Amino acid sequence: MDRDLQTVFEKLSFCFETRKFADLRIVLLDLEPADIAQFMENNLNEKEQLMFFRLLPKELASDVFIETDTDTQERFIKAFTDKELKAVIDDMFLDDTVDIIEEMPANVVKRILKNSDPENRKQINELLVYPDDSAGSIMTTEYVSLSATMSVESAFERIRRTGVNKETIYTCYVTDRKKRLLGVVTVRDLLLADKSELIADIMDSNVITLNTLEDKEQVALKFSKYDFIAMPVIDKEGCLVGIVTIDDAVDVIQEEATEDIQKMAAMLPTEKPYLKQSIWSIWKARVPWLLLLMISATFTSMILSHYENSLALVANGVLYAFVPMLMGTAGNAGNQTSVTVIRALALGEVEFRNVLKVIFKELGASFVLGLTVSIACFLKLWLIDSLYNKVTIEVAFIVSIVLLLAIMMAKLVGCILPLIAKKCKLDPAVVASPFMTTIVDVLTLVIYCVISIAILG
Amino acid sequence: MDRDLQTVFEKLSFCFETRKFADLRIVLLDLEPADIAQFMENNLNEKEQLMFFRLLPKELASDVFIETDTDTQERFIKAFTDKELKAVIDDMFLDDTVDIIEEMPANVVKRILKNSDPENRKQINELLVYPDDSAGSIMTTEYVSLSATMSVESAFERIRRTGVNKETIYTCYVTDRKKRLLGVVTVRDLLLADKSELIADIMDSNVITLNTLEDKEQVALKFSKYDFIAMPVIDKEGCLVGIVTIDDAVDVIQEEATEDIQKMAAMLPTEKPYLKQSIWSIWKARVPWLLLLMISATFTSMILSHYENSLALVANGVLYAFVPMLMGTAGNAGNQTSVTVIRALALGEVEFRNVLKVIFKELGASFVLGLTVSIACFLKLWLIDSLYNKVTIEVAFIVSIVLLLAIMMAKLVGCILPLIAKKCKLDPAVVASPFMTTIVDVLTLVIYCVISIAILG
Repeated sequence: MDRDLQTVFEKLSFCFETRKFADLRIVLLDLEPADIAQFMENNLNEKEQLMFFRLLPKELASDVFIETDTDTQERFIKAFTDKELKAVIDDMFLDDTVDIIEEMPANVVKRILKNSDPENRKQINELLVYPDDSAGSIMTTEYVSLSATMSVESAFERIRRTGVNKETIYTCYVTDRKKRLLGVVTVRDLLLADKSELIADIMDSNVITLNTLEDKEQVALKFSKYDFIAMPVIDKEGCLVGIVTIDDAVDVIQEEATEDIQKMAAMLPTEKPYLKQSIWSIWKARVPWLLLLMISATFTSMILSHYENSLALVANGVLYAFVPMLMGTAGNAGNQTSVTVIRALALGEVEFRNVLKVIFKELGASFVLGLTVSIACFLKLWLIDSLYNKVTIEVAFIVSIVLLLAIMMAKLVGCILPLIAKKCKLDPAVVASPFMTTIVDVLTLVIYCVISIAILG
Repeated sequence: MDRDLQTVFEKLSFCFETRKFADLRIVLLDLEPADIAQFMENNLNEKEQLMFFRLLPKELASDVFIETDTDTQERFIKAFTDKELKAVIDDMFLDDTVDIIEEMPANVVKRILKNSDPENRKQINELLVYPDDSAGSIMTTEYVSLSATMSVESAFERIRRTGVNKETIYTCYVTDRKKRLLGVVTVRDLLLADKSELIADIMDSNVITLNTLEDKEQVALKFSKYDFIAMPVIDKEGCLVGIVTIDDAVDVIQEEATEDIQKMAAMLPTEKPYLKQSIWSIWKARVPWLLLLMISATFTSMILSHYENSLALVANGVLYAFVPMLMGTAGNAGNQTSVTVIRALALGEVEFRNVLKVIFKELGASFVLGLTVSIACFLKLWLIDSLYNKVTIEVAFIVSIVLLLAIMMAKLVGCILPLIAKKCKLDPAVVASPFMTTIVDVLTLVIYCVISIAILG
């Protein structure tokens, strides 16, 4: 945390504890809502939080409310009077209200809807219909719309009149009577144009749009590709139904990256910050894969049992000692590839049609990588491992060859699995990463046992 | 890829091949620069790309140039005449010029600087001084500055006069004569204010600022925390030296997530898209860790060799069969934790001062997780593994107990390593994730061998 912010927090704590509420408000007015929420959650207990929230200047209350985490929001709503709740909700943008509603239990949702304006309630209900991972679920209906026949001057008037409650005013949307999107015009265009010009003449009619049902991951990629600060969302009929703003896209980008990282590390994704997760929710997220992978390791046990006697008999039984090294290195090699391909798929850099290109690239890379690593391994076996173990040159040779084959196999599995998952519309991060290790483990062991026994036995 | 975009690309290809350049230009004017760059790079060979680029409408050329990848940019610059180069550079924002310069070899940089305006050249040189990962390196000096004594009306005049070449006009910066930052005012504030009001009266003087040397990862976090579309960058003296815009922050967020994912999968980070990487660059990124981890696996070989005879003698030698399962499960368990903590550190959710909280949480979680998994393992050994192997109840018991201990140990190592790395100002993703596996492997083996032999031998 910033040292400046630390100082401000100490001041806040002092004013709050000594009940200097006038001073407190002065400090608060200089702070960003996100910082106030951070202060409340990290420095106050539950009872103090509510008391503190009620002290907030009216114009800050809903902004701070949005920034607190879901549990706090739920607690607050349950403690609010209807009047308090209504004040907070009325001041929020609709997409934020919808985000909150989506996380709340049914009885809390009911109270929120009861305390919303009838007009807002209608729009909230419309927004709630969209699936959780769609563009519709992160859009807001509060945008500035203009008509094509307006002059620049009357467009400014309209922005002045209606802009206060809009999430962004910098991109305005030109629609016809049926709400079909005709074009966009930015405040920059308006400022640089002549007052008497018509919107139709300065608007950009080639608009990159989003569809209501488009995956929000796709939405985030479009934002990072095109560098817009807002994008319009249209329905099947081509009518404008809302906009997505860049700040929501940024949240999606962060969340999607976190989720992919969690999935690749064999966990169920969760949006909650780590320190807020209970031991029970950690258990729930981690136990399924841990169990599944433990049980699937039965295959490696079976292979080792099967070859047990043969392995113990040849080469003075030294072969066992290199099983972890071989499986570990193959696992690392496969992981490098699967993670690379999964991320490239997530960023839209690679698609299924690139499958051959990817396979050839990985085959080439895995051969030179495998060669380097297995030559190094041969030298290591010969120079280091022979010091503590009865490694013959024959054993060193077998282990190194198996290592080369295992690395190439692992990289092939690592690139094909995510691509197949993508093709089958499964999530590459879930399917490919945790599963890959098991497949690679089993295949590495089989290659090792078969080759050693063929040569030595 | 969108089907619409696909259709447009086919049209472009057709116009280009049949040399219908007038039609081509009409299609081009309706496209976003990012799409044109994508078309060039995916559908044309190197010679065609240059020819195509020269056909671009003048106002699109630099925007498309910025969107192409570094190799293409270098090829283009080398092929450009001085006049062409100057035209492209003059049309770019300074931060984009600097980004390009940072990737180019010395002789290309020289040509770029030679062909820049003297005024721009001075600013470019100033921007080039900042370290690669700092706020200074991603900022631009092209912002709108206002003075506090201006009226709203004259502020608008100034924006109209100077705004064309600014990266954003929506947030304006109020500075004094020495360029010290006094406050910010948004175009929204200006539009909603009365024309005769003074900037000093409507500006927000509590500005969240960035420092020139602040880590760009930190910059990205501030953007996602505060939801701004631009943030001012000040130097040590408090003078405004530039701004960072949200589109650059979005790129940083994507890059940082990709880099962390690469590091956690034991690779050196690279910014190049996967399909553009040569086999040689893939080799360079992957071989160091693969070698290091292979060599560090010597420890597991040593331990297995050391206990070889004892392990073979007790329990009919079945103990070997469970080594991969134990090491694999412990590795997965440790990885879940280290990846969670590394991501939480990257998002600023966890700091070193939370170390005890994290350890207690992981101890608790690892105990319930370990208990669940080892009970399941006991049942599996008893019901499944005994079918193909001489597993006694004693062996099943030992393996399950070792599994519980190994999971708890792995999760402890997995949470402590990243926190220590962070404290030592090392990169948690590099230090913690690849290293963790080796440590966990070794410790799991030691626990297994010592306990089995103590009980059975």
